[in-house]
Amino acid sequence: MKASQSFLATLKEAPSDAEVVSHKLMVRAGLIRKLSAGIYNYLPLGLKVIRKVENIIREEMNRAGAIELLMPMIQPAELWQETGRWEKMGPELLRIKDRHERDFLIQPTSEEVITDLARNEIKSYKQLPINFYQIQTKFRDERRPRFGIMRGREFSMKDAYSFDRDVEGLKKSYQIMFDAYTKIFQRMGLKFRAVTADNGAIGGSGSQEFHVIADTGEDAIVYCPSSDYAANLEAAVSLPLLGSRAAAQQSMQKVVTPTQTNCLEVANFLNIPIETTVKSLLFAVDQEKGPAKLFMLLLRGDHDLNEVKASKVPGMAESRFATEAEIKQACNAPAGYLGPVGIAPDVKVVADHTVANMSDFVCGANLAGHHLTGVNWGRDLPEPLVMDLRNAVIGDPSPDGKGVVDICRGIEVGHVFQLGTRYSEAMGCTYLDQQGKSQPMVMGCYGIGVTRLLGAAIEQGHDERGIIWPISMAPFEVVICPMNYDKSEQVKAAADQLHEQLIAAGIDVILDDRGERPGAMFADWELIGAPFRVVIGERGLVDAQVEFKGRTDAESQNISITEIKDKVIAAVNSAKQLVS
Amino acid sequence: MKASQSFLATLKEAPSDAEVVSHKLMVRAGLIRKLSAGIYNYLPLGLKVIRKVENIIREEMNRAGAIELLMPMIQPAELWQETGRWEKMGPELLRIKDRHERDFLIQPTSEEVITDLARNEIKSYKQLPINFYQIQTKFRDERRPRFGIMRGREFSMKDAYSFDRDVEGLKKSYQIMFDAYTKIFQRMGLKFRAVTADNGAIGGSGSQEFHVIADTGEDAIVYCPSSDYAANLEAAVSLPLLGSRAAAQQSMQKVVTPTQTNCLEVANFLNIPIETTVKSLLFAVDQEKGPAKLFMLLLRGDHDLNEVKASKVPGMAESRFATEAEIKQACNAPAGYLGPVGIAPDVKVVADHTVANMSDFVCGANLAGHHLTGVNWGRDLPEPLVMDLRNAVIGDPSPDGKGVVDICRGIEVGHVFQLGTRYSEAMGCTYLDQQGKSQPMVMGCYGIGVTRLLGAAIEQGHDERGIIWPISMAPFEVVICPMNYDKSEQVKAAADQLHEQLIAAGIDVILDDRGERPGAMFADWELIGAPFRVVIGERGLVDAQVEFKGRTDAESQNISITEIKDKVIAAVNSAKQLVS
Repeated sequence: MKASQSFLATLKEAPSDAEVVSHKLMVRAGLIRKLSAGIYNYLPLGLKVIRKVENIIREEMNRAGAIELLMPMIQPAELWQETGRWEKMGPELLRIKDRHERDFLIQPTSEEVITDLARNEIKSYKQLPINFYQIQTKFRDERRPRFGIMRGREFSMKDAYSFDRDVEGLKKSYQIMFDAYTKIFQRMGLKFRAVTADNGAIGGSGSQEFHVIADTGEDAIVYCPSSDYAANLEAAVSLPLLGSRAAAQQSMQKVVTPTQTNCLEVANFLNIPIETTVKSLLFAVDQEKGPAKLFMLLLRGDHDLNEVKASKVPGMAESRFATEAEIKQACNAPAGYLGPVGIAPDVKVVADHTVANMSDFVCGANLAGHHLTGVNWGRDLPEPLVMDLRNAVIGDPSPDGKGVVDICRGIEVGHVFQLGTRYSEAMGCTYLDQQGKSQPMVMGCYGIGVTRLLGAAIEQGHDERGIIWPISMAPFEVVICPMNYDKSEQVKAAADQLHEQLIAAGIDVILDDRGERPGAMFADWELIGAPFRVVIGERGLVDAQVEFKGRTDAESQNISITEIKDKVIAAVNSAKQLVS
Repeated sequence: MKASQSFLATLKEAPSDAEVVSHKLMVRAGLIRKLSAGIYNYLPLGLKVIRKVENIIREEMNRAGAIELLMPMIQPAELWQETGRWEKMGPELLRIKDRHERDFLIQPTSEEVITDLARNEIKSYKQLPINFYQIQTKFRDERRPRFGIMRGREFSMKDAYSFDRDVEGLKKSYQIMFDAYTKIFQRMGLKFRAVTADNGAIGGSGSQEFHVIADTGEDAIVYCPSSDYAANLEAAVSLPLLGSRAAAQQSMQKVVTPTQTNCLEVANFLNIPIETTVKSLLFAVDQEKGPAKLFMLLLRGDHDLNEVKASKVPGMAESRFATEAEIKQACNAPAGYLGPVGIAPDVKVVADHTVANMSDFVCGANLAGHHLTGVNWGRDLPEPLVMDLRNAVIGDPSPDGKGVVDICRGIEVGHVFQLGTRYSEAMGCTYLDQQGKSQPMVMGCYGIGVTRLLGAAIEQGHDERGIIWPISMAPFEVVICPMNYDKSEQVKAAADQLHEQLIAAGIDVILDDRGERPGAMFADWELIGAPFRVVIGERGLVDAQVEFKGRTDAESQNISITEIKDKVIAAVNSAKQLVS
């Protein structure tokens, strides 16, 4: 391809609304242009990367036996009413009306439509298992779209749905998809990690996320460097840090803490380790009738609450912070001085399991300006309900017992999910088993964020000059930069010949025939991120030499004009093997 | 590919709402399933055909120098307000609101977005000409979606937009697209015709439609079998059937026609040729102030009014039929007895140019139960305004003077259009010319209905057993039907070997390993429309023979097992050459 027949649209400046590096670089490199908040045009180079990503996904999905089809963007409300998602989903589900005032929506995913298709088309156990997928435009009406295409509103996703006879079958289908995803991200040349995820409100029995590792990632990933344990922060299990409770050494005392309203201030003021303090958080759960039910959650002073874990406290699936009035009723003290000792008896006290094994601890006294020291379970207050409530922190013991955990950041690009029968039961998606008995199909669902992958790859691979693509995602594998292409016949001849040779060898090459000055031309290609560059100039040709440089190489090499073709082919193939 | 790993979903019965054969066959062959009115799931086989269509389009568009990008489905209202289409378009434009109550729409086409992109990205004449295209999902909220995917609501379209410096450049870009479209439909193996189209309300200076020829087509095409003249009925020019006006022979007479209210009845009653009668149609155009302006259009009794031509009568761009009160005011007679003689002086009389050359004609007398005979222009009534007002009919002289026209029916699958500066002027899409002066870009737009092409191809190619695909669109080129695949090792070995050989030769082959009975298996593949079929059975293998049959062949041929591979390859290649 020649640059003059392509559409290069590089920019010196990033748009002012671009907060993250991938957004800035995608606009500057001419991959995308914003049309409206969270809605983007994909320029030719951006679309080219999308097609490469799609092709890798499609090849591996087909290899894994999944079957491609295409479901509509615009879906009728009726199906979503059958599963309750029409009512349950928030305003991120864009509900619309057609000219006859009938309710439709723009699909964020397609569980309902594929389940409808399966219940109509699949009748017998002989047709199972089956796995359908599509690569299709999705829409989520994010309240605050941001990070360019990483949290956009209109985006492209690959979504697959497996149907099995039973849970055992689902586990097999799930593993096949897990392996395909691993292959897909490997082929893309990305550093990634599969992490255990929380099942969330959808239910189901197991789920893992695939994260591209990047310092700028939105999600924290807890992993063990000395094992394959990895989970997102929401789902990472925290073991108790104390094996058992030590015997009480101190008596409980009320101490004055006039302005100290958090554990760090209290520890500094009392000159004690923060690990001896306990923080008390009061939550309320509204009841259909009567006052809200109150819960006090206890964490060690240096730990943070994990909201997903809190939502699993019996009765706390949907909670909120207690109001000032509720705090006063439960503790008769202002926030900052709350504690579990002597609170109203109808407040349910739940301790993180590290807190449950503490003795002689410090907590709020339920009295303004005071804390209690030397507090001990069983002696000073009743034994609490004990659960895992906190976020993991660096240095925690790994739940698999194989060392301590570290935390890195990631960008979620894939999710595999054992749905079970949530959708098939709601929609009557059944098959006849070998005994002729009707059974609900057992489903899994599997997503990959196609457009999001572009942003994630750039967050992982970039420098101050631009994008560093893995070769399998790069819009072009090699750029030929001729100096004075239009003026020097010798340069033109050499550049054209190499261009044709590389095309013939199946290399995705672009010849920059725009006639830009060398500085601007090189800057463009470092910004766009071509993995390899060949510079052809008259001066070098005197000695039959051209310059060859990898995107991340410090220096270029002089290569003989007779050897450059083989050099490029070898470099591209070698880079490809590294990632496949 | 093996049928067991595909998803064949053939049906014995067509759905009751399927009116046309392509809709029936697409559902029965398992290409599509309806999700909602005008909204369809594309099952794996349907998607496979779409991909083949897309690939042909993409290859020819790229070859023609057009550049692919991707614009969003959901577009902000603001851009459409700039061109006035937000207000002007009817309810087929699906207008929606996002969670912040901002106005958006689901794109039916993308003129506004591409013009916005061009005005932002293109500054200089050096960047022109350029031609962008996308293959993207579109939505038109048809009042009554019908004919399956031929007039659906959600559909896929290839839309291209060219930008030029001037009209001369546009003409070149237009011709390049015209040639590319010709190549595209040729490669698809369709019988088609490019026809002159009316420019419609969009304005612009020239437009042609590409129609797939099919008896069931919605559109009438006027063409000359002995030249390359072709136009759709709306745009087909009708020459005057009378070269000049003959001298008056009769005096004007009032005759009683008690119950004869149309030309055919009058002609029969008076025993005269219908070609001597004139029909009078009264239209009204509402004015901002005062009563509506009235127009009487005159056509020969056997001719029909062409509404597009009528809309070009000065002042008649938006007209309606006159009301009873208006008819009374203009003619003082009931409908059925209207005529141009003696009508109110403020009624504008417009005669089709065949009528203008008639003499001694018959028309309504503006008196209930009476007509006038022997009417002559200039003598009995003033000379009218003369225009081309009628639909062409079979046997009319061809406008190019090369014979007489015939009429066939077609399905519009493509449209090329010289837009001019309608969008670029409305949106300020300008470039600096060589003199540094700002000029509006001159645009063209070019559409192909991707999903509609499937329906059109089937309307053109089918028989009572199913679809007859052109080979370039068929979901599979060849099916191997083994008898007792699971029971006969010999059959299985032969079928598997041929399957692998054909895959290796680049043939798109499917092996039916489902174990269906021969009758059901053959019926499925005739319904789906595989162009070639190989049947392998134990009986034939005794003599090392298999059966080979083209979809439209009356009989199958016995071919030696050692020759079948080459036979299939030769047949596929020969069929492909016929269409490329």
